[in-house]
Amino acid sequence: MTKRVAVIGGDAAGMGAATQARRLDPSMEIVAFEKGAYTSYSACGIPYVVSGQVPELDSLVVRSPQEHRDRSRIDVRTGHEVTGIDLAARRLEVRDQSRARTYHAPFDELMLGLGAVPIRPDLPGIDDAFVHGVQTLGDAAALLAEAERGRCSRVVVVGGGYIGLEMAEAFVARGMKVAVIESAEHVMGTLDPEMAEPVEQAMRALGIDLRTGVKVTGFGHRIVETEAGPVGADLVVLGLGVRPNTALLEGTGIELGVKGAVRVDRRQQASVEGVWAAGDCGESTHLVSGRPVHIALGTVANKQARVAGTNLGGGYASFPGVLGTAVTRICSTEIGRTGLSAAEAAQAGFSVVSTTIDSTTTAGYLPGAPTVRVRMIAERGTGRVLGVQVVGGAGSAKRIDIAATAITAGMDVQQIVDLDLGYAPPFSPLWDPIAVAARTLQTIA
Amino acid sequence: MTKRVAVIGGDAAGMGAATQARRLDPSMEIVAFEKGAYTSYSACGIPYVVSGQVPELDSLVVRSPQEHRDRSRIDVRTGHEVTGIDLAARRLEVRDQSRARTYHAPFDELMLGLGAVPIRPDLPGIDDAFVHGVQTLGDAAALLAEAERGRCSRVVVVGGGYIGLEMAEAFVARGMKVAVIESAEHVMGTLDPEMAEPVEQAMRALGIDLRTGVKVTGFGHRIVETEAGPVGADLVVLGLGVRPNTALLEGTGIELGVKGAVRVDRRQQASVEGVWAAGDCGESTHLVSGRPVHIALGTVANKQARVAGTNLGGGYASFPGVLGTAVTRICSTEIGRTGLSAAEAAQAGFSVVSTTIDSTTTAGYLPGAPTVRVRMIAERGTGRVLGVQVVGGAGSAKRIDIAATAITAGMDVQQIVDLDLGYAPPFSPLWDPIAVAARTLQTIA
Repeated sequence: MTKRVAVIGGDAAGMGAATQARRLDPSMEIVAFEKGAYTSYSACGIPYVVSGQVPELDSLVVRSPQEHRDRSRIDVRTGHEVTGIDLAARRLEVRDQSRARTYHAPFDELMLGLGAVPIRPDLPGIDDAFVHGVQTLGDAAALLAEAERGRCSRVVVVGGGYIGLEMAEAFVARGMKVAVIESAEHVMGTLDPEMAEPVEQAMRALGIDLRTGVKVTGFGHRIVETEAGPVGADLVVLGLGVRPNTALLEGTGIELGVKGAVRVDRRQQASVEGVWAAGDCGESTHLVSGRPVHIALGTVANKQARVAGTNLGGGYASFPGVLGTAVTRICSTEIGRTGLSAAEAAQAGFSVVSTTIDSTTTAGYLPGAPTVRVRMIAERGTGRVLGVQVVGGAGSAKRIDIAATAITAGMDVQQIVDLDLGYAPPFSPLWDPIAVAARTLQTIA
Repeated sequence: MTKRVAVIGGDAAGMGAATQARRLDPSMEIVAFEKGAYTSYSACGIPYVVSGQVPELDSLVVRSPQEHRDRSRIDVRTGHEVTGIDLAARRLEVRDQSRARTYHAPFDELMLGLGAVPIRPDLPGIDDAFVHGVQTLGDAAALLAEAERGRCSRVVVVGGGYIGLEMAEAFVARGMKVAVIESAEHVMGTLDPEMAEPVEQAMRALGIDLRTGVKVTGFGHRIVETEAGPVGADLVVLGLGVRPNTALLEGTGIELGVKGAVRVDRRQQASVEGVWAAGDCGESTHLVSGRPVHIALGTVANKQARVAGTNLGGGYASFPGVLGTAVTRICSTEIGRTGLSAAEAAQAGFSVVSTTIDSTTTAGYLPGAPTVRVRMIAERGTGRVLGVQVVGGAGSAKRIDIAATAITAGMDVQQIVDLDLGYAPPFSPLWDPIAVAARTLQTIA
């Protein structure tokens, strides 16, 4: 009998797995349920659409439902929300929104690409229409409409993580007055404090009203209430991170782990045979700490989807894990991080040594050589590199890939000093800043 | 008795070793002999001075003779040329150019930082004053004077390697008419042919008269003679590569290896006890082929100098080897390469598979996303990556560092696919081009 695969979620994880499974197995039936209208899009591109740098929202769509149908023979059903999972009967309960009817869909194997949802703290007024998350293309369309209407002259971003800061800059580009409220002492909680400071300086230089160490207490009429008094707002953007969208799995017996993410094995199989998961709804193993983590990033989702899809399609593939590598640009300041921060390393039980060095991303004698700060964290005694952070001008962010590759290989600081990295005056000082950090750490590791 | 160290050569290799030795041993006597006027400068920066981008030739000097004297108590003698080495008597014969006298200098240990000299083929007219090498700051001063005088309206570069192409672009920036003559079918012999083509297109788009597959036969009055007829020239720049400057070592018993480079062990010690070498005059071990190679690059010189200096100073350090990583920018086209080219891999006895992919250095939906081409070469069967080349727009060159780090770690294509590399729309497509190449190669490796 033909194998029937049901996919829940039409974004990178679900559709990536479906597409990969189809490559391996031309015969299986694949049905994908997506409650929204879009499939396979780049949520990371949303700030660039809102800012106007990318002119069309549709540019973010990598593959439309029809393309999935035509190219991969996947029965994509948009506007269909899965409302229940019956693992014993191997069937889904599905709500067809346009026809307002509910039906059952059988499956032999199930692919979970449930994604994540923006964290919405339980505060008065949080569900007001002027409070927006940034997760789906639907969210993007709403924010873009606001930006283009230009009626929201005052934007308040709650939370100083990647997406919050990217959105803050996007609204500045639209000529709006932007405030960012962050409850911690520094923005970018995935960086150590000394690396967050230059980001904060760059934000303030761009005119962003940055308020750190301030807790939001609620939302009123065109007002964000905080412990330090009210802040006027025509539009609120939530940048408090995301949590796995796994409410649907409660009571199914599918085991959940850290932050409620689906626990998976290295083949991306959940605790129930024939149920697979990938992307923002699932756990990953951190390659340095060895511990399960929830890291919601498109790169991870795509790789895990490819692994899940290969196994779904009858092949074999495994996903080794993540380093939490992330890069972004905020107000012309490039940011990169990989591995463990000093705080994360301590939490994972490492005794660490660390250093922070300042260098340039080109030869120092070239006029206007951009500055870069590199922070490196290594295990005391062994010198094994555990994490690296970079903040600086043009040419800073992607240097983190050197560190990501070296950490994956288990290199110590001496091995990084020895690396034969590319050098020419327009691209690097003679010693790459990453190697300078390693060389400095060598003397104290 | 105080140990006496003699250093021959005042650039990166010699002075780097001397400085490092001084750090470890405050008591030794260190005398450094340099026949020119400068110490510790960035020869890689010469094209940027000639183009006018770097306003002062002196900007390239990292540390002057006086700074070496003051900071590291090194007795630097510029204008002093070593004309003989007597290893049995442990003394040098030195010519003091300014006083036109010759004297002997004793030593206990000897550091060779002899550098390299531009290859000058034995052609009629090669020693004419209008034929310039590009190696020392003296060469740079001469070329800069020509560029600024502006009398040489027609520049002919002989040889299409890194330095030749960088100089070609520099003279174009000065408004001169530039021809490049290369005897091989393609420029950039360290790249495979399909990677050299986009570089050639970019050169021609800039108005450079590129003649490949053409042999130079001699130099006349304002003429470069070639097999394909004469080319008018007011100035000729040699870009034919360099050879180790080891003529001084003939007959000393110091063993020479590939291309006449000093053979060294992993501590940078030559075949004679107490004689050390680093940089362009010496051999390195290639980390992929395991074979001795001569790679004249500032990065290698600096690292080897640090190792030699540590050992000279009584410590222990070793240099693992090189990948021949190199990056440059020619006419807005960024170029990077590391490891073995397909031809080099075949020569080293590998059976290889390779792929060439086209991608972008940012998310494809960002307006003006620069294109990039990646070529990856892997060992057949094992999938171990042997070499990578990149050519493309902004953001291309330094991606080679991912490959350099991965190759150093002995990674195969699967491990590169699995790398947790940084992604954000301004910096990368979701799958980094390096990972795309690995993923493509995976299907055929």
